[in-house]
Amino acid sequence: MKLYKLIPVLFCFSLFSQNTDSITLKKIYNYYLTKSKCYSNLEYLATKIGGRLSGSPQAEQAVIWAKKAMYEAGADTVILQPCMVTHWVRGKKEKCNLLSTKLKITKPLNCVALGNCVGTGAKGINANVIEVSSFEDLEDLGEKNIKGKIVFYNVFFNQTHIRTGTAYGESVKYRSKGASYAAKFGAVGSIVRSMTSVIDDEPHTGNMNYDTSISKVKIPTLAISYLAADLLSESLKKDNQLKVYIETHCQTLPDAPSFNVVGQITGSEKPNEFIIAGGHLDSWDNGQGAHDDGTGIVQSIEVLSVYKLLGVKPKHSIRAVAFMNEENGLAGGEAYAKFAKENNEKHIAALETDAGGFTPRGFGVDTAFGLYNLVSKWKTLFSPYFVERIEKGGGGADLIALKKLDVPCIGFEPDTQRYFDIHHTAADTFDKVNKRELELGSAAIGSLLFLLDKYK
Amino acid sequence: MKLYKLIPVLFCFSLFSQNTDSITLKKIYNYYLTKSKCYSNLEYLATKIGGRLSGSPQAEQAVIWAKKAMYEAGADTVILQPCMVTHWVRGKKEKCNLLSTKLKITKPLNCVALGNCVGTGAKGINANVIEVSSFEDLEDLGEKNIKGKIVFYNVFFNQTHIRTGTAYGESVKYRSKGASYAAKFGAVGSIVRSMTSVIDDEPHTGNMNYDTSISKVKIPTLAISYLAADLLSESLKKDNQLKVYIETHCQTLPDAPSFNVVGQITGSEKPNEFIIAGGHLDSWDNGQGAHDDGTGIVQSIEVLSVYKLLGVKPKHSIRAVAFMNEENGLAGGEAYAKFAKENNEKHIAALETDAGGFTPRGFGVDTAFGLYNLVSKWKTLFSPYFVERIEKGGGGADLIALKKLDVPCIGFEPDTQRYFDIHHTAADTFDKVNKRELELGSAAIGSLLFLLDKYK
Repeated sequence: MKLYKLIPVLFCFSLFSQNTDSITLKKIYNYYLTKSKCYSNLEYLATKIGGRLSGSPQAEQAVIWAKKAMYEAGADTVILQPCMVTHWVRGKKEKCNLLSTKLKITKPLNCVALGNCVGTGAKGINANVIEVSSFEDLEDLGEKNIKGKIVFYNVFFNQTHIRTGTAYGESVKYRSKGASYAAKFGAVGSIVRSMTSVIDDEPHTGNMNYDTSISKVKIPTLAISYLAADLLSESLKKDNQLKVYIETHCQTLPDAPSFNVVGQITGSEKPNEFIIAGGHLDSWDNGQGAHDDGTGIVQSIEVLSVYKLLGVKPKHSIRAVAFMNEENGLAGGEAYAKFAKENNEKHIAALETDAGGFTPRGFGVDTAFGLYNLVSKWKTLFSPYFVERIEKGGGGADLIALKKLDVPCIGFEPDTQRYFDIHHTAADTFDKVNKRELELGSAAIGSLLFLLDKYK
Repeated sequence: MKLYKLIPVLFCFSLFSQNTDSITLKKIYNYYLTKSKCYSNLEYLATKIGGRLSGSPQAEQAVIWAKKAMYEAGADTVILQPCMVTHWVRGKKEKCNLLSTKLKITKPLNCVALGNCVGTGAKGINANVIEVSSFEDLEDLGEKNIKGKIVFYNVFFNQTHIRTGTAYGESVKYRSKGASYAAKFGAVGSIVRSMTSVIDDEPHTGNMNYDTSISKVKIPTLAISYLAADLLSESLKKDNQLKVYIETHCQTLPDAPSFNVVGQITGSEKPNEFIIAGGHLDSWDNGQGAHDDGTGIVQSIEVLSVYKLLGVKPKHSIRAVAFMNEENGLAGGEAYAKFAKENNEKHIAALETDAGGFTPRGFGVDTAFGLYNLVSKWKTLFSPYFVERIEKGGGGADLIALKKLDVPCIGFEPDTQRYFDIHHTAADTFDKVNKRELELGSAAIGSLLFLLDKYK
């Protein structure tokens, strides 16, 4: 056949496929917007189980629940992948009290200890405070100005970024490494302004690590709310001799046994080739882990229901993965990759949904193995659903280990505006999740996996 | 100059303009995300003034407030355009009680009378109920089955539409014309299932009209919540002799004098050519009118602040328009168009923002006078701000009269998923508005008007 004849045929074929696919996507969306279980699943996970920090009884309940939910969604196999997880416990409620004799202030500041930090114990720490806005400030001030004090990282979110995650990315280092930097100069504790987009009184927790390459000394550290940080900073301007008393009762216990939960529909043609969608099952303990990452879990589970709905078997094995220990260890992501490697599982694509259950905007897709080019072709299929942005990049914390095995990764990207209002706070609760927004996210992810299975 | 030389020069010029414009847009967005007054303005309008139905003292307070806010935002002139508005008052709280002797149920249903309807007065109406799901059902049932009863329009939102407004558009006729159709067949009252995306107990009000071409009889009508409609429908299945008692105290008083508030920055080159952005100042009385349409009002007012920020005068006259009486009469939109016509004001473009203060998704733009083609050219300028969809169409209820004068119209299109959760309910309150989402909308509208002024 001559090329000029082939081209129109291919073109027609392509139009025909797009049309068939658009009918299938409509079917998937209709299902998710009317019959999907993701919202009721989330209600159970967030309100009946609640916060589920790695190693906690709630995390173990979540494992049992996820297994059941995956079978109900249509998994033919559910695997519990063992992993040893960080077992950090918060203990008694933290205290952070501002004390200024000069200003006649004795005020408790809303606070939350940072994950993995050491506690002060019952005796607490009472010390002067030195405010900084960067690590460079510490260098400039030097040990003589810092020793024996509590370092207060007063770093604001840059609100001019359109993606709130960019602001988070810029300031999160003060939460994760701040204690070690402060300890390097002899500080006895560190406090960080909460990483937040809103002006309110909620303190935001999150992970920290003691970086022994910076300092071998481990000092207590916590986050205070935006308004508490304002008060502390204003008070310091008027009384640089004020003191802050912090008391935390955190402990790191020996690593605990836990599991990833992996629900699978075995592929009809290529059972040892995998396409996965995952979120993390653990969450911080202070809220319900609704947006972070209950929504990602229920969206991943709902991927399995697509094939029952369409009455077809996928060609590749499709997996919903509930990773354990994303928040303070990443043991689950590593265990999954190790398991995949040991079992010679070929992963075609891995999607992570861990940015909240908000209205979908697009996907970040790895360029490796032509994945970005392939997904880009489906732009017109997703456009009627307002999923507009197919961008280069992709993946998330739980996929780091898989990425090292050259698995091409995808990040689900919902609207980011409200995420850091409640991220890692007591306000990350079920009522903050909008049913339709969650379902549209599920539909976008379910549709993408359907297309990946069909065209890979 | 030869054409092949001209093309690269024009191309470079175009690139240069785009670059200059992208710098300006960044400046506008930075301002709106850090210094804009739209959120604090909304707080005042929604929480200090509150619900502001046409003809109410609150609507008059809102007029005075809007005038002040427009001057503060940079208006050189604020015009109060008189208009006579519908003056409907709700009176005492409505009642809608379900009574079934057979089922042993006596239950008040959460309800709200529909705007502009007549009241039952203190004697109320106690009658059997006939459930229908369309006007066609009424035709089929006929007068013999309907006369003396209350018609219950049990019509659900179609959740499979991606834009929630499409579902609203499909079902709103039962709210607006349902009473007249029911009266045509001898019904004594009508009840409508609330127009809502969520399953909850909030009743949603909204406008209705007695259409004398359908029936000359005016019967009382109200909306009940989603859950109340479920209960009523379920109960009717078990006891079709059940009764509902409705009692409403609404009245339509003589039309009242009111105003549109029009804040202007007079154009430096073409002062009699106008580009306007508007929302409606009135709202329903049962909530705070936050998303509907407090957000549109504060976004329109904030358009004026762009020129102070940039230190430039617009070429054309730029106006923020706070229309009065959108909810139950459209007198403001008509008065504005009449004023424009009488004063030979040439309107280059008119934008309406009345779809809530949610994350911006795009604009619907009239194709008339090449407006759609012009705005489409700016897609790449808006893309970094996630404003993706420049679509054909545009405008809104307040621009109907201007459209008849051939003014090309634009509708601001935010994300629609959460709007009908709270639309026309007591839950349309300030706390439902996210600061960043509101500000991003303001920035998108401010940027668009800046570009229209520059390139028209």
